[in-house]
Amino acid sequence: MKKKAKDKDARLPKVFVLRWGHRHRDQRLTSHVALAARALGASGFVMADIADNKVRETVEKVTARWGGNFSFEMGGPWKQVVKEWRTKNGVTVHLTAYGENIQTSDVMQRIRATRKDVLVIVGSQKVPGGFFSEEVSDFNVAVGNQPHSECSSLAVFLDRFFEGEELSKDFVDNAEMKIVPQVRGKKVVKV
Amino acid sequence: MKKKAKDKDARLPKVFVLRWGHRHRDQRLTSHVALAARALGASGFVMADIADNKVRETVEKVTARWGGNFSFEMGGPWKQVVKEWRTKNGVTVHLTAYGENIQTSDVMQRIRATRKDVLVIVGSQKVPGGFFSEEVSDFNVAVGNQPHSECSSLAVFLDRFFEGEELSKDFVDNAEMKIVPQVRGKKVVKV
Repeated sequence: MKKKAKDKDARLPKVFVLRWGHRHRDQRLTSHVALAARALGASGFVMADIADNKVRETVEKVTARWGGNFSFEMGGPWKQVVKEWRTKNGVTVHLTAYGENIQTSDVMQRIRATRKDVLVIVGSQKVPGGFFSEEVSDFNVAVGNQPHSECSSLAVFLDRFFEGEELSKDFVDNAEMKIVPQVRGKKVVKV
Repeated sequence: MKKKAKDKDARLPKVFVLRWGHRHRDQRLTSHVALAARALGASGFVMADIADNKVRETVEKVTARWGGNFSFEMGGPWKQVVKEWRTKNGVTVHLTAYGENIQTSDVMQRIRATRKDVLVIVGSQKVPGGFFSEEVSDFNVAVGNQPHSECSSLAVFLDRFFEGEELSKDFVDNAEMKIVPQVRGKKVVKV
């Protein structure tokens, strides 16, 4: 049973998240985006162009306590991250309110049909125009064509990409603690 | 056609979001939570216990420009908001990593089966223990049993509650501008 689940995972494309445009005043927001990436099935997070140890500490502390394999990198120039990703034959998805609507278009099917690993690019409100070009994004995807948040957009994208299965994912590898779901109250056990 | 859509809307339960525990340092985060609520189909947002005009301005500016009917209230004591909601026969859903898993349990079906309007309560990391009690929450729901963000949790909850239909929702009522989805680039038209 466990073996089967692993084999299945091995076939699933991996998703990494590239955060563009982080500023120190965004510490809490960027931490939330990274934690959403981890909890919703992404394999790692790259904070481009800038290093922020506060964010790194928050994310690494959560991963150390609650487990799973989630990589965290920061500081690399975004163009280089995108270039290397494409060299490795992955596709890039830019989340933007201006893109193809994830609900009313077939963009998710087309992304899945590539069967490739995905780098999801999330920016702040004003990203360089180049993000929309073929040099950067294979797909421009809108989680609805209304402005909201990179954190909420990413969450819905991942939930749909993984078809909800990410939420039953087992994080016990390397975990210290595990939550046991309850109708009321909190239950946490050591792993 | 329009008429039919409206009749259908009239039958759908409404969702409001109660944000507990906002602090001024959370301005960007709370704004994102409110904008996610609006974009993902909620009818309004209540920031409990505290007033923060920066958040209000951000949200009201977005609603004025991009349209739709989305209420914003702030400052009312959370206990009173919950009490009034229940008096009006609505149910309360507390989003927490400790609750029933939205993917592996039947909690969403049970919420929907009530056919009642929903007040979604999102807190910060440590909410009072009372939030888990029957006096406050009818349902404690976990968008996965891993810690992440109230913004990402709310997004997935709303997307699943409305079964994705919120993302094709028409916001042109009272809108100044509208995004026209594009494969590449940005297209905005006046309404």
